[in-house]
Parts: sequence; C-alpha cells; structure tokens
Amino acid sequence: MSDLSCQVPLPPAGLRARFRRGDLVRPTAGLAPGFVQANLVVLPRALAFDFLVFTQRNPKPCPLLEVVEAGCAEPRVMAPGADLRTDVPKYRVYRDGVLVEEPIELTQWWNDDLVSFLIGCSFTFESALLEAGIPVRHIEQCTNVPMFITSVQTVPAGAFHGPTVVSMRPVPAEKVVRAVQVTSRFPAVHGAPIHIGDPAAIGIRDLMRPDLGDPVEVRPGEVPMFWACGVTPQAVAMSSKPPLMITHAPGHMFITDRRDADFSVL
Amino acid sequence: MSDLSCQVPLPPAGLRARFRRGDLVRPTAGLAPGFVQANLVVLPRALAFDFLVFTQRNPKPCPLLEVVEAGCAEPRVMAPGADLRTDVPKYRVYRDGVLVEEPIELTQWWNDDLVSFLIGCSFTFESALLEAGIPVRHIEQCTNVPMFITSVQTVPAGAFHGPTVVSMRPVPAEKVVRAVQVTSRFPAVHGAPIHIGDPAAIGIRDLMRPDLGDPVEVRPGEVPMFWACGVTPQAVAMSSKPPLMITHAPGHMFITDRRDADFSVL
Repeated sequence: MSDLSCQVPLPPAGLRARFRRGDLVRPTAGLAPGFVQANLVVLPRALAFDFLVFTQRNPKPCPLLEVVEAGCAEPRVMAPGADLRTDVPKYRVYRDGVLVEEPIELTQWWNDDLVSFLIGCSFTFESALLEAGIPVRHIEQCTNVPMFITSVQTVPAGAFHGPTVVSMRPVPAEKVVRAVQVTSRFPAVHGAPIHIGDPAAIGIRDLMRPDLGDPVEVRPGEVPMFWACGVTPQAVAMSSKPPLMITHAPGHMFITDRRDADFSVL
Repeated sequence: MSDLSCQVPLPPAGLRARFRRGDLVRPTAGLAPGFVQANLVVLPRALAFDFLVFTQRNPKPCPLLEVVEAGCAEPRVMAPGADLRTDVPKYRVYRDGVLVEEPIELTQWWNDDLVSFLIGCSFTFESALLEAGIPVRHIEQCTNVPMFITSVQTVPAGAFHGPTVVSMRPVPAEKVVRAVQVTSRFPAVHGAPIHIGDPAAIGIRDLMRPDLGDPVEVRPGEVPMFWACGVTPQAVAMSSKPPLMITHAPGHMFITDRRDADFSVL
C-alpha cells in the first residue's frame, strides 16, 4: 500500500487497470479521493426486476447509481469503458446464499443472464462531512465504520425483504444539525440520517458491539447518528438465497469516474 | 367545479372516492393543496424492467414515486387503500402507441399482467416556488404550463428512448438563483432545472409556440427556466408502441396521501 500513498493519486481509470491486471488487491478507502465509489450487486435476470423495485422502495439504504443490463458488463454512466467483471479489486460469489469464493476477477462466473447494480457508498458523504469540519471517528481511528442490524424493516419487493442495516458515526452535539444538512445534500449516497440519538429506539442493544465493522469511541457530548448503510441490499439479497449472487468484497469497492460533487443536490 | 372551490378542501381519500364513483371528472390542479399528485404509467410486465431502468437513468424527467407490481392495483406507499383502476379522474388507453379510449375507470382494460408506475409531478415544486415568492406565470394566467420537445436526448434503456420534454416558467432575473435552490430541494419531483436562458441551446425554436400546453408571456427582465417534464416518460413509452399502455389523461392526475413537504430533501 505504501507505494500508492507516496505517489500522486492514480485516477480512477489507472486504478481500475491495476485491479484488472490483478497486480493490486486492496480495500479502496482513500484511493481516488473525490471520486464516487460504489457497492456492486450482480443477480440473475429473473430476480432483477424485484431487486430494482426493492431499491426504488428503499432509496436510503439502496441508493441506485446505475443498472447494467444482462449481456453487458460496462457501466456506461458511472465509468464508460470499465468492465465490471475485472475492475473491482476483489469479489464475493454466493450460491444459494452461501459464500463460495472470493475471486479477483469473474471470468469463470460471468454469463449473459446477469444484471449488475451499482449502489452508492457513504465514502462520498464522509468527504463532505470532513470538509464541513465534522469529525468522522472511524476515519480518525483507521478502522471500519460500525454497522448495526436494526429493527427498522425495509419495504419488501418480491423475494426481497429484511431489516435495514445502519452505519453509526458519533457527532459532537453542536454539529448534529450541520451533519444532517451536509448529508441531506447527497440523496444518491444514502442522504440524511435515519435516526439520531437513542440506539434502543431502532433496536440496537449495545453501541460498542456492532454487528459488522469495528466499534468506535463515543465521547461525552457526542450524539450517535445513524445512516442507512450500503450493506443492506447485500444482506437483503442474500436472505432471498438467489442461485447466484456476486458482490464486491467488503471495502473493495468499484471506483467510478464520477465526482462526489456531481451527486450533491445543492 | 365551483361547488368544490367554495367548500373546505376535500382530503385526498375523499376526492379519490368521488373519482371512483364517477361523479367528479375534472383536472386535478388546485385540488387537495399540499398533497403530492402523480403521473400514471401502466405497462405490460414484459416491458416493466426496461421502463424501470429507464426511469433510473433519467431521474429528472422520470422521478419515480412508486412501482405497483403486476397483480396489484393498490399503491401502498403513496396512497394505501386506493385503487389505481378507478381512483384517477380520467385515463388514456393506448394500443400499439395509438390512443383508443379515454375511460373514467379501467375495469375492461385491467389484467394481472400490468405493472403501474407513479411518477412525480411539478405541482409539488410549484407550490414551493409560490411560497418562496416566485411568480408562476401559467398559474397566474390559469392556463396549462408550456411544454417543449427538446434536442436533449434521454439515456435509453431497452425499448425506451427519445427526447426530453421540458416545461418552461419565466422567472424574474433576480429570482433565478432562488428558483434553482427551491426546486433543487425536490429531486423526487423533477428537481433543479435542466437549462436556464437561451431556448435555442436545447433545440427550442420559438418560445411562444410550445409543443404541448399553452404559451405564456415572458416579460422584460424575465429569464426562461426549463425543468424536465413528467410528459417525457409517456412520450418515450409511446415511442416504443407497447401493445397496451394506460396513463392518466393530461391534467387528471392521481392524488396521493403523501404531503409535498415529505419530498423535500432539505
């Protein structure tokens, strides 16, 4: 990793080329700053309509950036010329809801019946929070953001249903309003928080024991803020146990050519 | 109409009940103020995925509020208990892209293969413009908003492709910035304008000869502002000549139970 951090940042296409060649396999946090990174979900065509309706009904956990139809692997809107079969640093392949492999490219799994979905990622609004002077604890601590499975149910669609997963960021009380405003400007990448304050109100028992990711310190005078999380669609898709589902490996996102700023509504 | 305007406004469910009974058939502008009104598009299931992808790729002209799956006529998110087969004051039925009937209910046309789409309408942001002290000329003139077929192409999806249709509102130069801000807050109902100023830049030859709706006066010191229009998805859907397509009749919208304010991001 150090060879990358000491260089001029590679542009998205340069990074994707290294992922494609297989000579770079690492989490993408901090790479290509200013460019949107995306969650990937790939499903058989028979489930694609239901999943698409699911994302429409649940825009906060599932902010859909692009749909790539069956028979195509190029996300023409978010990264023209890229190839979703090779340009993610690491993938996960699930069969009937069970993780069977973590390949670095998809040649052996791909077929023309697969539809791909790119879903927004909170990296985009975290940059905006930092620029607004709002600290982001898990970035300070160099850990993964703490995530919780809540009692807030998503709106079901066809085979897809399940709880909303949230990420938590503790924010100084005097900056909570600003954090709402800043993230509200990014509805395409989870947008405003879904809850502020008491974790129990959304079914979270212990803030220091996240279901996914790492715990972070909540200091006196800080308020926990909860945003819908991009893990939700994967968790929900898995609950329907599709014959084949492919996603990015956690933290190993698809890096697009679109800028974070393009996804602000104001 | 006068019997309605002199009464306490009927709530959405009361209006829908009158439309359902067939004892009220009129355009819905001005009815149920503060509640979201929606465009309706109904298509056979075989075209539904492509149309859904089309709306995702073109969120400004096609801001999707709800998808109601085949076999169901109740929009549970926007108006629980309502029935899309009866609760719109007037419909249009197209066969192979040709208008064949304007019924006031759909019993004879409905079948369990049809998927319904509710799409945002600019009535929502027009209320916000008026509240912000920005005049809306076609409301002052009691005419339909002027609409133009532009040279701006939508992003195609499957069978669906075609030009973006815009609505035009002339705004005093000193209020243009505010009008951008106000409408940006409503991405679910067309959002920010797609063009400000020179009509020729988006392929409009004569501002006083709209392709749809009525011309409105543009006074000295006013700037024409162009927003993507909810007529686009109907026009685009028709260009694909589906075997059956049902829409609301122009101006005869579906009145939902959701409030305009719920669709503001800030």
